[in-house]
Amino acid sequence: MKKIIIATKNQGKAKEFKELYLKKGMEALSLLDIVQELPDVEETGVTFEENAALKAETIAELLQIPVLADDSGLVIDALDGRPGVYSARYAGEDKDDKANIKKVLEELIDVPEGKRTARFVCVLAIARPGEKTDFYKGTCEGSIAFEERGSNGFGYDPIFIPENETRTMAELSSEEKNSISHRSNAISKLQGRV
Amino acid sequence: MKKIIIATKNQGKAKEFKELYLKKGMEALSLLDIVQELPDVEETGVTFEENAALKAETIAELLQIPVLADDSGLVIDALDGRPGVYSARYAGEDKDDKANIKKVLEELIDVPEGKRTARFVCVLAIARPGEKTDFYKGTCEGSIAFEERGSNGFGYDPIFIPENETRTMAELSSEEKNSISHRSNAISKLQGRV
Repeated sequence: MKKIIIATKNQGKAKEFKELYLKKGMEALSLLDIVQELPDVEETGVTFEENAALKAETIAELLQIPVLADDSGLVIDALDGRPGVYSARYAGEDKDDKANIKKVLEELIDVPEGKRTARFVCVLAIARPGEKTDFYKGTCEGSIAFEERGSNGFGYDPIFIPENETRTMAELSSEEKNSISHRSNAISKLQGRV
Repeated sequence: MKKIIIATKNQGKAKEFKELYLKKGMEALSLLDIVQELPDVEETGVTFEENAALKAETIAELLQIPVLADDSGLVIDALDGRPGVYSARYAGEDKDDKANIKKVLEELIDVPEGKRTARFVCVLAIARPGEKTDFYKGTCEGSIAFEERGSNGFGYDPIFIPENETRTMAELSSEEKNSISHRSNAISKLQGRV
């Protein structure tokens, strides 16, 4: 069905436009729809690639323009790769960084230094309407600290110590994080593809 | 600056993508930006056309796709055209349908039947990147009731009695409203232009 974007945040107007355009065989999308149509899929896929593609393709199809999406997570060797694609909701359905960190630290309580290796993984998907989706993967190697430190960044940053660092990711400035992060690593592979 | 849409609602990720893309001379826009960048301009312009164009052009420029916006309001003859472009915030900065209706009823308290004529006006603007914006105007003639009635629709619908009706707009079904409304009237003029 042909789509038209309606620049409104007014629910009443959005509803009327939808009804009126549907009669003309068209789908009217408000700005609220664009945000809401992005499924909360960060945890439901089996791979980072699957989740990233789903997000990028959903919005690219809605807007009919190229869209980039990221799926990322923390892969801990001593936990057989967990939390992995379940990183954002590891401790429960609500996304809760503090609870997720607490759960990981508890699961690793008996794991000694040297066996706490882990990596942040970021997969970028670039979806273009009617074309095959491209993927770019970036990683950042490191290990899990014994306690949280620092307040920058988000997610598991306060317990992740990057290779060749003593500070956690959350103790780095955003410039420092951006120079080594899994996300910047993945973006650097795009090489002008977006 | 070249733009890329990032399919995320995560503020932390959005911030990092912005920083990383800025270094590449590009602007990363998250879904949150798309909604937030729409200025709350419904009341600031002097004409419906000006407000509709501002909304449509802002989002069309952001997304680089054709976008439709609507600006609409209630024009009451006995109030010299007020609330007009100020309809949504007539009673104060917060959009409050109940307060707006109360203010209009109070201002018209001494105006007799027959002198309470009014019309709903809708101006649609269709903005296409790099092209001149088109406008389509629709109206719905009627009069202002002495008290509010009905719970359908939104805005001033409970006090607006369309021509050839005894019920208020808020007492009509959405099918009935859609067959006579200022908004449907304006959309019918598009004739396949979107």
